[in-house]
Amino acid sequence: MSKRKGTVGEREIIELFWKEGWAAHRIAGSGSNKFPSPDIIAGNAQRKLAIEAKITKDNIKYFDEEEVYGLEAFARVFGAEPWIAVKFAREHWSFFALHDLMRSGKLFKIGQKDALTKGLLFEELIKKEIISSSS
Amino acid sequence: MSKRKGTVGEREIIELFWKEGWAAHRIAGSGSNKFPSPDIIAGNAQRKLAIEAKITKDNIKYFDEEEVYGLEAFARVFGAEPWIAVKFAREHWSFFALHDLMRSGKLFKIGQKDALTKGLLFEELIKKEIISSSS
Repeated sequence: MSKRKGTVGEREIIELFWKEGWAAHRIAGSGSNKFPSPDIIAGNAQRKLAIEAKITKDNIKYFDEEEVYGLEAFARVFGAEPWIAVKFAREHWSFFALHDLMRSGKLFKIGQKDALTKGLLFEELIKKEIISSSS
Repeated sequence: MSKRKGTVGEREIIELFWKEGWAAHRIAGSGSNKFPSPDIIAGNAQRKLAIEAKITKDNIKYFDEEEVYGLEAFARVFGAEPWIAVKFAREHWSFFALHDLMRSGKLFKIGQKDALTKGLLFEELIKKEIISSSS
């Protein structure tokens, strides 16, 4: 995916958060940072979310270990919930916990059908009451 | 101050946080964002800090209202402590609460002598126990 396309997707998510009374921003240099980093940080008085965001035209989205472990490491140190946001073709954004990722050799993957069974819609994500990276 | 010099200063602060076991990153597009934004977001399991960071060779540093109110607004919505970091010539970074800023017409200002009386050193900032934007 092009860098530009990634940025457009991240901006969409950021708009969604501010509309709902949350603050959200892109992290500078995400993907090329010296320290582990998410694409987006979002928060309100109660919750902080670290988000890796991807748009794809395929029906499976792959993630390399560095992306996933970087997100996990940042979230643990910063004190935030780690979330993976994927927008499949003709779908809304789906938000996945890290345990929703499946192994695929050295990569991790999420399929479009998982969006229905495991993914949360944005509205569900922000109403989630349990603050835990494992639920 | 040049954009590049600003970025160098921000990177210094980010290094300090990671060395002490905190997570910190620059916010993308800070200063030109559609939504209120700090330069840096830092956090650990207990605290979240939103920071505006400036390096100056002068002995007074000025801030415009947009910078100060933007920092304050972001911090309130995100749920973080707002801090102003200033590095005067031949000094370490000093961290100021918003109430340490003085009015100067339409601007706000902090003087180099305030670094001694009101400013916190980095080590003091991260050991601060009271989580409050007004103390």
